Amino acid sequence: DASTANNLFNPMHLLRDFDYGTLKQENGRTIREFKVTATNSLIELNNVVSFNAWTFNNRIPGPTLRAKQGDRIRIIFENKGGHSHSMHFHGIHPANVDGVRPVTNGKSTIYEFDAEPYGVQLYHCHIEPVTRHISKGLYGMFIIDPPQPRPPADEMVLVMGGYDINDDDRNELYAFNGYPEYYSRNPIRIYQNQLVRLYVLNMIEFDVAATFHLHANFFQVYPTGMTLKPTHETDVITMGTAQRHILEFSYKYTGKYMFHPHQDFIAEHGCIGEFEVLPQ
Amino acid sequence: DASTANNLFNPMHLLRDFDYGTLKQENGRTIREFKVTATNSLIELNNVVSFNAWTFNNRIPGPTLRAKQGDRIRIIFENKGGHSHSMHFHGIHPANVDGVRPVTNGKSTIYEFDAEPYGVQLYHCHIEPVTRHISKGLYGMFIIDPPQPRPPADEMVLVMGGYDINDDDRNELYAFNGYPEYYSRNPIRIYQNQLVRLYVLNMIEFDVAATFHLHANFFQVYPTGMTLKPTHETDVITMGTAQRHILEFSYKYTGKYMFHPHQDFIAEHGCIGEFEVLPQ
Amino acid sequence: DASTANNLFNPMHLLRDFDYGTLKQENGRTIREFKVTATNSLIELNNVVSFNAWTFNNRIPGPTLRAKQGDRIRIIFENKGGHSHSMHFHGIHPANVDGVRPVTNGKSTIYEFDAEPYGVQLYHCHIEPVTRHISKGLYGMFIIDPPQPRPPADEMVLVMGGYDINDDDRNELYAFNGYPEYYSRNPIRIYQNQLVRLYVLNMIEFDVAATFHLHANFFQVYPTGMTLKPTHETDVITMGTAQRHILEFSYKYTGKYMFHPHQDFIAEHGCIGEFEVLPQ
Ligand SMILES: [Cu+2]
Ligand SMILES: [Cu+2]
Ligand SMILES: [Cu+2]
Ligand SMILES: [Cu+2]
Ligand SMILES: [Cu+2]
Ligand SMILES: [Cu+2]
Ligand code: NA
Ligand code: NA
Ligand code: NA
Ligand code: NA
Ligand code: NA
Ligand code: NA
Ligand SMILES: [Zn+2]
Ligand SMILES: [Zn+2]
Ligand SMILES: [Zn+2]
Ligand SMILES: [Zn+2]
Ligand SMILES: [Zn+2]
Ligand SMILES: [Zn+2]
Ligand SMILES: [Zn+2]
Ligand SMILES: [Zn+2]
Ligand SMILES: [Zn+2]
Repeated sequence: DASTANNLFNPMHLLRDFDYGTLKQENGRTIREFKVTATNSLIELNNVVSFNAWTFNNRIPGPTLRAKQGDRIRIIFENKGGHSHSMHFHGIHPANVDGVRPVTNGKSTIYEFDAEPYGVQLYHCHIEPVTRHISKGLYGMFIIDPPQPRPPADEMVLVMGGYDINDDDRNELYAFNGYPEYYSRNPIRIYQNQLVRLYVLNMIEFDVAATFHLHANFFQVYPTGMTLKPTHETDVITMGTAQRHILEFSYKYTGKYMFHPHQDFIAEHGCIGEFEVLPQ
Repeated sequence: DASTANNLFNPMHLLRDFDYGTLKQENGRTIREFKVTATNSLIELNNVVSFNAWTFNNRIPGPTLRAKQGDRIRIIFENKGGHSHSMHFHGIHPANVDGVRPVTNGKSTIYEFDAEPYGVQLYHCHIEPVTRHISKGLYGMFIIDPPQPRPPADEMVLVMGGYDINDDDRNELYAFNGYPEYYSRNPIRIYQNQLVRLYVLNMIEFDVAATFHLHANFFQVYPTGMTLKPTHETDVITMGTAQRHILEFSYKYTGKYMFHPHQDFIAEHGCIGEFEVLPQ
Repeated sequence: DASTANNLFNPMHLLRDFDYGTLKQENGRTIREFKVTATNSLIELNNVVSFNAWTFNNRIPGPTLRAKQGDRIRIIFENKGGHSHSMHFHGIHPANVDGVRPVTNGKSTIYEFDAEPYGVQLYHCHIEPVTRHISKGLYGMFIIDPPQPRPPADEMVLVMGGYDINDDDRNELYAFNGYPEYYSRNPIRIYQNQLVRLYVLNMIEFDVAATFHLHANFFQVYPTGMTLKPTHETDVITMGTAQRHILEFSYKYTGKYMFHPHQDFIAEHGCIGEFEVLPQ
């Protein structure tokens, strides 16, 4: 079933795939340019469910856009999705680039603003009904690094999402990074005693919150990624829709360890995975 | 539809309306006296839905009672609602004024206690079923100011509520300050670079939590309003029923910016609004 | 109905019942040994509902296991439940004792690991569907004390649970420590101005979160019990499934005071209780 799980994109690649854009110089200023296209994509969520997803760059979540605080950001957004979409960013920016205006099918627009402040931000389509446009797959992470980079770590992105297969405003399936249970069938390999830096985002609609839980370990929490020092330590953290954090940890012992929301209904319906801790 | 939205009260007035009560001197002590009456009120939630609300002082939320820490508080509560109600306050007080005893229709009672500690507190009817008495509209904010006043700011109150129109223990409509989508049709005017101090309270029953999200900005969080310094900064905060905070921010750029729970189902069913940031 | 409420176990006893295990010396090391047995138990949740519970040591929650940081822990787990179960602990431990492997009916296993780090941890069965095995009653608290004991206090355990009586993935009843409304009919006696240290855990499945609210008072929060100093103060705290904290408070005035999740639907369906504050 690994081939099924890879029909649209590969979650293992997506996990550590950061899009830093293309650097350009204009009028003496550095600009980081990104290209994002909205399309419709058929995604085989499992052996029996094919889902008409709406995607940014043919993947769920969309590309993990990444910049440094103070960079000038330019997103060239093209809508090939068949009807109106947009890209709304979390972060500080003027109203005219807030991404709440529809970009009709076949049109493009440019969102340009300064990347501020550092933290784990996000973007998503903001066309009504937003519940539909988000649960169809139109969301992604936007990481703004602090001026002084964080310490070296094995960095990865985990985005929790929900799928409302039958349009009844409830989710039948859930996933980390697009494919239900992908990281259970294909555990994420990490190394004993190595620092892991998770960028975690909850984009599940209809359920008002989900927790992130890690087995046999605890993580340091950097709320919204907006601090340079952790504020507390735990192994279960509640995240309402659109909340996101940096979570850091390392495993002392080798072996396989699950991670999942501890709302076990959500875990049992696909939002679950495993770390495989290898000896150093 | 502005007239429809104002049939019972005006949310724009309610937003910055603080009830400091009547100051009295008794036995050498200063007393702050408030009058609150429970009644039934027909409220037109939108063009098609008239709702038999239960209200404190003919508004949803009830009056924003406000005092300074250490004041002696006296609430003269009169029940004209047709059946039993009460006023239960959050805060420190003796059991006999905890407001869990029914005040039968046509009767009055007095709740008297010291206002402590400073923070964003609340009150609500505590007659069973509490879900019904709260979702019918019987709740309000109770602000206790610290001994040293907070710095000057444009202060306003936003209370999230839910309406169970068909009595099935789910909400069909939601609102900030009573009327669904009022502040979308009538954006809240604020000024560029001016400090805004939001007193936010979640009184939505049946959904276990809601977030508060602000577009294109971040806010400083004072949890339960019980600190004088913010503890962290974010743009999405999870609030279970009866949670409340002070959130502070200012907008750098002019224009219109949405605010809403990021559980977009709740936003799309009425709990949504806009700030209009005007040049200084 | 006190007799009904005591048909399987006595929640008043369970409240302050800490299982420190049996101390053994092996190869110069101190070991703390616990015995836990999974069985099926008929529990009369109220006068009309008998529930086929699955229990650890014939109680819900299971025994409150308690150790000091650094102790060697040995749990001798015996499964007499009629089908597979397990004990999965939160805390740091190797993969082979993570408790995700089924222990078939009639078999035993031993989970042995170092108790680390200090905090309010927990255990629960991790056999699929976990929602079912948890909501049937297979969970308990695991307290790891810090090297320097916390100050003296009246310590007690409150675990929030939900019962899905009709197997529809929703809860019809809820409880603190097993029996719906037990502590409303039998208030918990405490003393005026005495420090109370609550160990609170939310094990409610299907509802993604619940708050803990205390009437007429505020509590100091020690998140996940992993700090020695409180991080903040409030009277309503949101807890996703498997979240747990230490909450400390004392009552200034005598009398009876309710506590309950402020999602009042959950409170009205059994998760509610009272403190009776007696004069010193
Ligand atoms: Cu869209
Ligand atoms: Cu958003
Ligand atoms: Cu009432
Ligand atoms: Cu309350
Ligand atoms: Cu089990
Ligand atoms: Cu668990
Ligand atoms: Na659905
Ligand atoms: Na777990
Ligand atoms: Na309803
Ligand atoms: Na938004
Ligand atoms: Na049920
Ligand atoms: Na209450
Ligand atoms: Zn669209
Ligand atoms: Zn676990
Ligand atoms: Zn697990
Ligand atoms: Zn009433
Ligand atoms: Zn937003
Ligand atoms: Zn929005
Ligand atoms: Zn089992
Ligand atoms: Zn209360
Ligand atoms: Zn109450």
